[in-house]
Amino acid sequence: MTEKIAVLGAGSWGSILANLLDENGNEVRLWSYSPAQVAELNDHHTNERYVHDFHYSESLTAYSDLAAALDGVAAILFVVPTKAIRSVAQQVAAVLAQTGNRPIIVHASKGLELGTHKRLSQVLAEKIPADLRQAIVVLSGPSHAEEVAKRDITLITAASEDDDAAKLVQDAFMNDYFRIYTNHDVIGVELGAALKNIIALGAGALHGLGYGDDAKAALMTRGLAEISRLGVALGAEPLTFIGLSGVGDLIVTATSVHSRNWRAGNELGAGQDLQTVIDTMGMVIEGIPSTKAAYELAQQQNIEMPITEAIYDVLYKGADIKEVIPQLMRREGKPEIQ
Amino acid sequence: MTEKIAVLGAGSWGSILANLLDENGNEVRLWSYSPAQVAELNDHHTNERYVHDFHYSESLTAYSDLAAALDGVAAILFVVPTKAIRSVAQQVAAVLAQTGNRPIIVHASKGLELGTHKRLSQVLAEKIPADLRQAIVVLSGPSHAEEVAKRDITLITAASEDDDAAKLVQDAFMNDYFRIYTNHDVIGVELGAALKNIIALGAGALHGLGYGDDAKAALMTRGLAEISRLGVALGAEPLTFIGLSGVGDLIVTATSVHSRNWRAGNELGAGQDLQTVIDTMGMVIEGIPSTKAAYELAQQQNIEMPITEAIYDVLYKGADIKEVIPQLMRREGKPEIQ
Repeated sequence: MTEKIAVLGAGSWGSILANLLDENGNEVRLWSYSPAQVAELNDHHTNERYVHDFHYSESLTAYSDLAAALDGVAAILFVVPTKAIRSVAQQVAAVLAQTGNRPIIVHASKGLELGTHKRLSQVLAEKIPADLRQAIVVLSGPSHAEEVAKRDITLITAASEDDDAAKLVQDAFMNDYFRIYTNHDVIGVELGAALKNIIALGAGALHGLGYGDDAKAALMTRGLAEISRLGVALGAEPLTFIGLSGVGDLIVTATSVHSRNWRAGNELGAGQDLQTVIDTMGMVIEGIPSTKAAYELAQQQNIEMPITEAIYDVLYKGADIKEVIPQLMRREGKPEIQ
Repeated sequence: MTEKIAVLGAGSWGSILANLLDENGNEVRLWSYSPAQVAELNDHHTNERYVHDFHYSESLTAYSDLAAALDGVAAILFVVPTKAIRSVAQQVAAVLAQTGNRPIIVHASKGLELGTHKRLSQVLAEKIPADLRQAIVVLSGPSHAEEVAKRDITLITAASEDDDAAKLVQDAFMNDYFRIYTNHDVIGVELGAALKNIIALGAGALHGLGYGDDAKAALMTRGLAEISRLGVALGAEPLTFIGLSGVGDLIVTATSVHSRNWRAGNELGAGQDLQTVIDTMGMVIEGIPSTKAAYELAQQQNIEMPITEAIYDVLYKGADIKEVIPQLMRREGKPEIQ
């Protein structure tokens, strides 16, 4: 069965997911705050700034009017940046309160809210009260928009406490090259997606410092252990961290030179200073605020996170990466599982 | 405290571990079946065929006489190929029966015995009865001999049911760049090390077939899940598979073009036929017999292992890799954790 679906946010991931939903036969409305981007998508079926040299489906329609985009939809997919989730959710709630339409809410964004350290589904649930919607579903996993655009095979997770909502999302997205696995552990899926960026920063830093594959694999393994510890303390199921949004997303992020977080870490390791790295990247490096969030959550929960602490010291306390990382890797030997 | 230790097998991993133990102040005897290799090590402190352009410690002594090498040692480290473990263990038992010395037995080999599918510590325990030795310890984790030779940082696991034996091994090996974590789960550590080669073959095959990072990360994630399922059925603890000898070794093997198993898979994916791949590699590709072992164990245990089955079909039943791998990645969507 195909559905009427609104996709909010026309960056690379949002626009490619919207195109995929359209290809699958759904009626898709792609909303953007930028009228110029909406015009480019509707007139030329391109989105050059985000996905170079890609022709979008001609039946995919872009909207700058949010109320029009949301009219009668069965599901709303949020793919806006982390920092915009709260304000866009508030606008969505205002529209839904007027129309009485109660759609499923889905998001495919990764990160924790700055300051509050809330998961994005918590922010969505807060701003869009339960009487205005069905259940919330989180889409996450190892996925580059560029590879989905090329119809390369991608497997991701649809996590929800509600089986019917997860199943509807699975049916809408699933096709020959885009495979959806359902999962009940919303907390674990969101935390895996947000926290893996810290480890990707660290893996990049090791590379920049000149360490090899052994050290990188060790850091990723011990990093996965510590983000799992924090996740479990925050209510996640441990097995989620060896799933697609845990180890899967970690592998794709921490071993790819295309990952922003890996690249930022690599430049820091090679001796570049933090502000220069931030300025030259010109894009959000999610691992930087995620490190602060994880560090503060670990303090609150009394969880030992040596890798996160070391990266925090470098990013927020001016510690020398050339000293901190080797110290970290040379900690006392101990039992692997505690 | 430093120890008298025999290292059996002077390939790249055995000789580099022997050199590291010597550097740490232990008295090390490196045994090889090849008199020419023993002479090269003692006369020139090199081992060119295995580790190019490396100068071994001058206090490291090589032996071709097994009884002389074993005289009075506190520990014996086996680093011989999988297929030689049984016969070397039998020779060691004969020496120990004569001398009455009861050393700790350690091995750092990876694989399952051909035909019996036994773990190597099982073979060692069978051939060296308990009254001739102390406990058995398994050393395993993400490690390239070349990186340890360069004193790059490496973290590995020492697994044993006996804490004192694991601790002695930890103390003997540990230094500034080589870090040892102890673990009780011998079964999980050995199975992780052996079975990850299957997934590395599969990841190489995806690359050879032209798939991208998303597909590779997904295959590694689902592969880790299926080797964990088999491992748990065979008595392993699930957490071991997210440790150094599980996900750590998987990452280093399945993302490195230096891995033999990855390279073999890559050539198969690119269209080369199996016999040509085996002939041109000129070295054992552990993933090939491991695939057969895992396939047969999965049948016995009634465990679903779709990735292993697909690779088995290609290696042992002449199935076309170009059809099998895409079919595998396009299976029915379902719950991620079962």
